[in-house]
Amino acid sequence: MSQAAQAAQRIVGRCRELAQVSDVPGQTTRTFLSSATHDAHALVGGWMRQAGLRVWTDAIGNLRGVTGSEDLPRLVIGSHLDTVIDAGAFDGPLGVVMGIELANAPNSEGMPFAIEVIGFSDEEGVRFARPFLGSLAVVGELNQQMLELRDAAGFTITQAAEEFGLNMAQLSSARLAPSTLGYLEFHIEQGPVLEEAREAVAVVDAIAGQTRMQVSFQGHANHAGTTPMGRLRRDAVAAAAEWIAEVERYAVGCEGLIATVGKVEVPGGAANVIAGHCLATLDVRHPQDLVRRAAAEYMIRAAERAGETRGVEVECRTMLEQAAVPMDEVLTERLAAACVKSTGKSVRRMTSGAGHDAMIVASKIPTAMLFLRSPGGLSHHPDETVMESDVAAAYGAGLEFLRMLRDDKAMLDRLISRASRFVHGAPHA
Amino acid sequence: MSQAAQAAQRIVGRCRELAQVSDVPGQTTRTFLSSATHDAHALVGGWMRQAGLRVWTDAIGNLRGVTGSEDLPRLVIGSHLDTVIDAGAFDGPLGVVMGIELANAPNSEGMPFAIEVIGFSDEEGVRFARPFLGSLAVVGELNQQMLELRDAAGFTITQAAEEFGLNMAQLSSARLAPSTLGYLEFHIEQGPVLEEAREAVAVVDAIAGQTRMQVSFQGHANHAGTTPMGRLRRDAVAAAAEWIAEVERYAVGCEGLIATVGKVEVPGGAANVIAGHCLATLDVRHPQDLVRRAAAEYMIRAAERAGETRGVEVECRTMLEQAAVPMDEVLTERLAAACVKSTGKSVRRMTSGAGHDAMIVASKIPTAMLFLRSPGGLSHHPDETVMESDVAAAYGAGLEFLRMLRDDKAMLDRLISRASRFVHGAPHA
Repeated sequence: MSQAAQAAQRIVGRCRELAQVSDVPGQTTRTFLSSATHDAHALVGGWMRQAGLRVWTDAIGNLRGVTGSEDLPRLVIGSHLDTVIDAGAFDGPLGVVMGIELANAPNSEGMPFAIEVIGFSDEEGVRFARPFLGSLAVVGELNQQMLELRDAAGFTITQAAEEFGLNMAQLSSARLAPSTLGYLEFHIEQGPVLEEAREAVAVVDAIAGQTRMQVSFQGHANHAGTTPMGRLRRDAVAAAAEWIAEVERYAVGCEGLIATVGKVEVPGGAANVIAGHCLATLDVRHPQDLVRRAAAEYMIRAAERAGETRGVEVECRTMLEQAAVPMDEVLTERLAAACVKSTGKSVRRMTSGAGHDAMIVASKIPTAMLFLRSPGGLSHHPDETVMESDVAAAYGAGLEFLRMLRDDKAMLDRLISRASRFVHGAPHA
Repeated sequence: MSQAAQAAQRIVGRCRELAQVSDVPGQTTRTFLSSATHDAHALVGGWMRQAGLRVWTDAIGNLRGVTGSEDLPRLVIGSHLDTVIDAGAFDGPLGVVMGIELANAPNSEGMPFAIEVIGFSDEEGVRFARPFLGSLAVVGELNQQMLELRDAAGFTITQAAEEFGLNMAQLSSARLAPSTLGYLEFHIEQGPVLEEAREAVAVVDAIAGQTRMQVSFQGHANHAGTTPMGRLRRDAVAAAAEWIAEVERYAVGCEGLIATVGKVEVPGGAANVIAGHCLATLDVRHPQDLVRRAAAEYMIRAAERAGETRGVEVECRTMLEQAAVPMDEVLTERLAAACVKSTGKSVRRMTSGAGHDAMIVASKIPTAMLFLRSPGGLSHHPDETVMESDVAAAYGAGLEFLRMLRDDKAMLDRLISRASRFVHGAPHA
């Protein structure tokens, strides 16, 4: 068995072992700073120590481990250790366990940079209905307002941290070291694209920006039998339907655009009553903000048009507007080249439609991201899985990436000089 | 004030008085054989007696009163006394009170036929979720299976009748007299057509047939951000939306067709999840059964097509299939002529999109029906109303209709000879 295959077997095995660590017996549920998080830290921290990393838990509960000497610049490899409710084994943990494996790789000795592995404490946002708490803290963007969010039991994040044994007064010490030269994340795709293309991995170009809207169609309820078709009807469902079909038509025709009406409600609807009110959600994503905004604008106008012809009033409320986050061009190019060199095949570049820790970290640190095929496109489900051969391919690409970085002194210098421009308030040692 | 205006004032006043008789204080709610029904019978029965009618309650709780001698053939004028929950004052009662007024009209003396007024005990079907119990009984079509239906408290119709003081063993005595030559019903339109046309009344040609379906679109739930547009999506909402738009498009283009998708549900729907399942209702109505059936067939195929292109499985279940009921041509012609003569204006012929007692009675007895304008198209609502001038017009047309019937011996003879062919099991005295 090749070294990559052995590493892949260990990575998958460790993810499955970690999946047993749960707040809820019989399923995999680990929310932010839950009691199972202590056990997860003990397990993953143990693997880090075995790999020769110095291990600590930062003020927001991120589990961190670093190789090499304190003076070296750092490449961070990470992902999250928290999960959704009744989760699978790989969404998050795969990237952390992969980081440990790469930090411990045979060629990691004598590197001109250290490897820091981070297991973020919150990416899914289950406990406080606010995702990315862990990665926001390491880039210094976890603000006071967020710290006062309350969970279902009424605890603030600060209180939850205290109960876990952390000290929020030291939050700034959770920041990335000033010499952090880049961030690398491995994550399952959570979609069907790689499976459909029969490809093991893909390099992420950008995390798509997102617009989320709530669209209200207000017509007039009337007897379905006594109100003729045409202008005497003010049918909210008919207006919404024309609009939903138009949303789909537009998105299909626009490269890279994804638009979804996932929720439709007809309050008080009945078979024999013309719908007086219809509520629908709209989720629009695209790697380029200009394209996404133009699409959202078009869809608002399309809703208004569908309403106008039917005497239905339309109101669009924007619930979320999140800019696209491009990955770092230089690191992304290197990661793609590493994939090609390691696998001997071309590698797909793709946009991530979902948010990831990489999206948060990329605001401050050059970031690259690798997707692994999701069999069945499945995630957030106990059946979520990965293929060991894909993990081996990703590991091989990771090793090659580290080698390239080691050997390209010019690039490394550029990254180091860029890192020094990321000024911290109170850098961690 | 003209006699018609006086009659109209009295009719509207009596409907409003009756609306105070309710199972629920502060609103108008009178369900089948409820306690308020006793009070309603006392009030309306009193008006019948004042008008010189012999009054009785039949075995299913219909309030009935008849003029003239036992030997005369009978013209029945009626509608229902029960209401929906939190109803208006006119849907039903108007036709009963109008019948009493016409039976008591100055020209009713020496008529060659008696007038029987019926206040049906159940048309809305609130209590047993089965409408038309009263009219089904008078045409001998209330069967044993229906009698065993249970209300929310677990009572069967037979038990409810007993508690009300009725004897279901005498159900056959509720049948219309063998010499019943016709049935006439006045009812509010419950739709916007007459108001839109600024017309007081319309003659009903037919009660539209109705197909009611439940359509299930079964796709596959997936992450809205990671699943690209196109064939990797199996979006149940997109399929349903294309179909709903097509249903509307087809109906608008088909004269007299009404099609409504009134209820749409997305079980477990969320803004960021492609809908795996969408349920929609379809209600199709048309006065001609062939046209309605062809439309329903087309709509089933359209749903299947919308599903096929998206990998969404479609299942259409027919919940109700009710044939159109044409009104009697001869009586309807006479009623139209009576309207023209009485108002001096042409009169609209229209289809009733809603079911009425006339629909049930017409299966056995020549039937005609007159609609009165519904201001705001409103019904099944406390604000439901009628204009007194429209009631006067309807009353005038009714009087003229009675005159025409009286004076046209040839037609009367044809109706009487037809009536004798309606053989009863056990005719009521």
